[in-house]
Amino acid sequence: MAGNTFGTLFRFTTWGESHGPAIGVVVDGVPAQIALAEADIQHWLDRRRPGQSRYTTQRQEPDEVKILSGTFEGVTTGTPIHLAIDNVDQRSRDYRNIADRFRPGHADYTYWKKYGIRDYRGGGRASARETASRVAAGAVARKILASTGGPGITIRGALVQIGPHRVDRAAWDWNIIEDNPFWCPDKGMSVRWADYLDGVRKSGSSAGAVIEVVAEGVPAGLGEPVYDKLDGDLARAMMTINAVKGVEIGAGFAAAALSGEENSDEMRMRDGRVAFLSNNAGGILGGISTGQDIVVRFAVKPTSSILKPMRTVDAAGNEVEIETHGRHDPCVGIRAVPVGEAMLVCVLADHLLRYRAIGGAV
Amino acid sequence: MAGNTFGTLFRFTTWGESHGPAIGVVVDGVPAQIALAEADIQHWLDRRRPGQSRYTTQRQEPDEVKILSGTFEGVTTGTPIHLAIDNVDQRSRDYRNIADRFRPGHADYTYWKKYGIRDYRGGGRASARETASRVAAGAVARKILASTGGPGITIRGALVQIGPHRVDRAAWDWNIIEDNPFWCPDKGMSVRWADYLDGVRKSGSSAGAVIEVVAEGVPAGLGEPVYDKLDGDLARAMMTINAVKGVEIGAGFAAAALSGEENSDEMRMRDGRVAFLSNNAGGILGGISTGQDIVVRFAVKPTSSILKPMRTVDAAGNEVEIETHGRHDPCVGIRAVPVGEAMLVCVLADHLLRYRAIGGAV
Amino acid sequence: MAGNTFGTLFRFTTWGESHGPAIGVVVDGVPAQIALAEADIQHWLDRRRPGQSRYTTQRQEPDEVKILSGTFEGVTTGTPIHLAIDNVDQRSRDYRNIADRFRPGHADYTYWKKYGIRDYRGGGRASARETASRVAAGAVARKILASTGGPGITIRGALVQIGPHRVDRAAWDWNIIEDNPFWCPDKGMSVRWADYLDGVRKSGSSAGAVIEVVAEGVPAGLGEPVYDKLDGDLARAMMTINAVKGVEIGAGFAAAALSGEENSDEMRMRDGRVAFLSNNAGGILGGISTGQDIVVRFAVKPTSSILKPMRTVDAAGNEVEIETHGRHDPCVGIRAVPVGEAMLVCVLADHLLRYRAIGGAV
Amino acid sequence: MAGNTFGTLFRFTTWGESHGPAIGVVVDGVPAQIALAEADIQHWLDRRRPGQSRYTTQRQEPDEVKILSGTFEGVTTGTPIHLAIDNVDQRSRDYRNIADRFRPGHADYTYWKKYGIRDYRGGGRASARETASRVAAGAVARKILASTGGPGITIRGALVQIGPHRVDRAAWDWNIIEDNPFWCPDKGMSVRWADYLDGVRKSGSSAGAVIEVVAEGVPAGLGEPVYDKLDGDLARAMMTINAVKGVEIGAGFAAAALSGEENSDEMRMRDGRVAFLSNNAGGILGGISTGQDIVVRFAVKPTSSILKPMRTVDAAGNEVEIETHGRHDPCVGIRAVPVGEAMLVCVLADHLLRYRAIGGAV
Repeated sequence: MAGNTFGTLFRFTTWGESHGPAIGVVVDGVPAQIALAEADIQHWLDRRRPGQSRYTTQRQEPDEVKILSGTFEGVTTGTPIHLAIDNVDQRSRDYRNIADRFRPGHADYTYWKKYGIRDYRGGGRASARETASRVAAGAVARKILASTGGPGITIRGALVQIGPHRVDRAAWDWNIIEDNPFWCPDKGMSVRWADYLDGVRKSGSSAGAVIEVVAEGVPAGLGEPVYDKLDGDLARAMMTINAVKGVEIGAGFAAAALSGEENSDEMRMRDGRVAFLSNNAGGILGGISTGQDIVVRFAVKPTSSILKPMRTVDAAGNEVEIETHGRHDPCVGIRAVPVGEAMLVCVLADHLLRYRAIGGAV
Repeated sequence: MAGNTFGTLFRFTTWGESHGPAIGVVVDGVPAQIALAEADIQHWLDRRRPGQSRYTTQRQEPDEVKILSGTFEGVTTGTPIHLAIDNVDQRSRDYRNIADRFRPGHADYTYWKKYGIRDYRGGGRASARETASRVAAGAVARKILASTGGPGITIRGALVQIGPHRVDRAAWDWNIIEDNPFWCPDKGMSVRWADYLDGVRKSGSSAGAVIEVVAEGVPAGLGEPVYDKLDGDLARAMMTINAVKGVEIGAGFAAAALSGEENSDEMRMRDGRVAFLSNNAGGILGGISTGQDIVVRFAVKPTSSILKPMRTVDAAGNEVEIETHGRHDPCVGIRAVPVGEAMLVCVLADHLLRYRAIGGAV
Repeated sequence: MAGNTFGTLFRFTTWGESHGPAIGVVVDGVPAQIALAEADIQHWLDRRRPGQSRYTTQRQEPDEVKILSGTFEGVTTGTPIHLAIDNVDQRSRDYRNIADRFRPGHADYTYWKKYGIRDYRGGGRASARETASRVAAGAVARKILASTGGPGITIRGALVQIGPHRVDRAAWDWNIIEDNPFWCPDKGMSVRWADYLDGVRKSGSSAGAVIEVVAEGVPAGLGEPVYDKLDGDLARAMMTINAVKGVEIGAGFAAAALSGEENSDEMRMRDGRVAFLSNNAGGILGGISTGQDIVVRFAVKPTSSILKPMRTVDAAGNEVEIETHGRHDPCVGIRAVPVGEAMLVCVLADHLLRYRAIGGAV
Repeated sequence: MAGNTFGTLFRFTTWGESHGPAIGVVVDGVPAQIALAEADIQHWLDRRRPGQSRYTTQRQEPDEVKILSGTFEGVTTGTPIHLAIDNVDQRSRDYRNIADRFRPGHADYTYWKKYGIRDYRGGGRASARETASRVAAGAVARKILASTGGPGITIRGALVQIGPHRVDRAAWDWNIIEDNPFWCPDKGMSVRWADYLDGVRKSGSSAGAVIEVVAEGVPAGLGEPVYDKLDGDLARAMMTINAVKGVEIGAGFAAAALSGEENSDEMRMRDGRVAFLSNNAGGILGGISTGQDIVVRFAVKPTSSILKPMRTVDAAGNEVEIETHGRHDPCVGIRAVPVGEAMLVCVLADHLLRYRAIGGAV
């Protein structure tokens, strides 16, 4: 209850600061006898790793994960799995100038108000570096889904908006998301985003984004009404990712403008199984999965660390200006795609175990 | 962890079905020596009560609350407070025709898939009737805020959109929200909504809505990074309200289209105190309150119970049609305003106690 | 986390004071489709009911339970089950004289120190009356064990010591425990206890006791190391019962005096199954059930409310004397037998669901 | 809820196996601005360290702790503190012979039944090595007590029984417990224990023990009735320590043989403060601290790993014999003293924070 733990039965606890010696995560509640090697986790970490294009931070972190407990001879034992990642490329002196002053839009001010002290180097605990631990936990959760929920579950994500520019859903192609540096499913838009972000980067500014993560093949029945609803847990999961300011399920805010008959997903039988004629619900009704695709979108604000001078105050109460010179993502939303996927996977793994507890067959 | 409990230190557990004998809530973690009478709670329940205009369900429920434990001579004792509300105006026979078939967009299908059984009368546990318990808990939370967080905290909410029609923020007037049946802060829009909803109601359809709830005077420092962030808990809180499909904090999804310099709320000193020049953050940075107004919006889908025939299936796997004839809200979002306020209050009370635990002076 | 909730997946929350209008319990996490009627619960409440012999309090409480939610047509639905019991025979004026002074050995002083206020009538929340709610929850847990853990699980309890007088284990006969007012398995000792307690009662004093509760037929595998061990949860469960001062598993404190080879339960095969040659472990090794009988003992101190004058202080800091004239159990340990059984059942039901979550077949 | 986390507001999560590369603990909920260095923790780890006398295991572990997160410039920041300890002196081949057979009295069998797999090297997760992490967490908890609960709180422990030999309470001297290898407060008994244990060791057997841990100076008011009682949490805390089979508070099981007037601790005023004339309650009434010394005793069974051949079975269901040749403690209870102290400190720190949350001034 102290804030650094996520989940109920599948649960993980993260630790570490951006410029400390390492970060890591203790993953608890993993069923025994699941094959798990470092390579299974490294694969997903590599997707989130910084420095892979000019649109993300230039910090070079290998993000090499080590399994320090919880497996024996390549298989989980049911005991807690500790995953550790060394921090390699810290440049803490870049941050000296912000030791006493608060970057607008950043957690600097609130950590200082709450704790009376803060590790200002690279954002300390508030850095997006913490999300590497989430991706590592998510990799373990994927193994649970694969071993417990059946082979049919697929989780993937895409960027659907950068700044004011949204993808064309008619042009959506999941096959191309790995072919561009944005996880963009719309080929034309990926070109436009490259231009747009080059401009943003050169001007020392930053851009926001919207991410969509989708889970296919999830069985009906996951989610515990009324306060541990699947969508409630997903909303919390996504909102805890750095810089996220909004979360939607299915039609989301657009549902408010629809009529009851437009919004309700009608049902028919197809090959002996229930089939929905649309998916405005985003795969969740009454907080429980329907068996349709689970569709979650979240909005990421533009990075608050920018090169342009901003008005702020310092710890002594003086009005000052600030420019941030550390290495930052011009669009932090890009690297939020694998993080959003990881959080979706973790929520599903947790609810899958909870569903089994009450006798649900999945 | 079984789903019907909300909160950590200030925590409540609700029970009851729409057409059972009663509903209620056990509120735990309330500090001792706070004056609390039934009238304190009744006041807020009356605002949520159905049947107060032609735009809400015609079910007539007095929603009379009884305090059954936790107070002594009008004052809290630190022990759990049980609040019970009798169900009075059930008409269960209205629901016989849906016993075997699933209303599209409703939890009928998912409860049946998850539990293999469901109390179909009035939606059972999935009914919005459960939210009366939340409002009762919220009334207790308000007393905690008043006694612990200082007299300056004000929580209120408004409807900002019905169907496609949004309020004009330039016309915003908090003083008129009690003067119309919609908690509408824009006088002109309230008239337009009345017309619009009359049409919706007559056609047997329903409309969605967007609610905004605001907390003023909240001290800086509330929220526990990184998984119990204040905004994470608020997102979960709102998303668990019936029919909610999206949650935003501050600028929300609009932040994605802003530049870094537009979005960041610059800071100055005013009368010796930190003042922000804008509030795109919605009062929360890094998951911790800044001291600015906390601004949360959430989208409510149109009621799925409508008079128009919809295509669905039944429990036996037959394709059938369904019309819902029980009493329903044409726009369930209207009564979601006091519910959203209550959830905001409960989250703040919980985090206020948590902040005190680590030595925070509020 | 506010103290009035027990359990993780099978969890219950109790409310109510000794002299309030009612007490009750919300039982959450119960799987759906289990037959449950009030009579199933009443049976167990009747065993704990006061006033059934001259050795227990003369308060006459019918302890009639009502199911207010969570079932539909006689079957659980997976939603929270609220069980309420009206208080009928309060005599609050008996307690006026203790409003300002603290009974030694009672919670009067600590509630006052902690909360600054207390409901002194009948002990308020600290009364053993709260344990009726535990017995009601236990009755639901029994249904879960029966439906989920197989028909072979039997839970029962006995009193093994009153005052200095212990049963002779060679004379143990489970069949006679309902035939005497003490749940005594040793016929000779039950007669002796009757004499002894008559003397205690007439002298206005009280006696302590030791209770043993046993679960047979529990499958191996229940318990979650290292902090949610089955024995850890049992120790907590029993220690939270009013007046309990010690808990043992298996050989308990006597194990300290044994040698390693005496204490270790050797293993052989019997009819193709593992059989232990002794049960000093009390059915639990490494925090996990072995499949042997689970054996828990707990010590109950003598009732602190006695007719003899005792030295104490009052809220104003004066040294005073106190005699307690309300109706009390001369040996509160007697009625602790069904309570201990209930707590054992609840812990097992919780761990059975947790074991299922990680794939355990029970 | 997956078993490897302890505490509510002050909470820690441990990870690691006996023969893995390292063990560690993430400590969450620590208030900010508390001075904390590795030396503060090392001091307490050194007391638990194996290999310090011939009465404990000969495994040589430096148990050197590293702080990997949660402090900045020597002071806590309010973020999770990760403490890691490398395993240095593993000799895993010693354990090959137990890979397929179950040591009686050990967790071998139950881990295998529960998980279907086990890390047999040195007991894996079930090894007492895990308790080093508890001692490290306890060292942090001590800092919280010192900074929050006032300077007057002292926690210490002693061994009060080895095998059948108990200390003479009349000879109790706290000052000598560091002068003998047993934490024995009775000089004569420490000599006797040395003789006794030499015999036990040479015969290849092992001995049990009883430990008493005491907290002085704890303020009244800690503990949350009715399920998070201070004594309930202490009972769970101690029972989760390896090999513990019983827990007592104050007079414990002996209270069962006392009369009500003997057992109740009468109260007088001394120098304007409440003073109790005895402490059978062990400092806790109604689950809440009284301000008296908190006294907890727990029984540790004799080490189950002994050199004598024992009858057991193997994983294939064959009846076999087993002798254990790894390095073991002849009396594991000795090193349980600092572990029991640590658990007591952790429970107190947690409840101290919880008490602050509801407004308690400590």
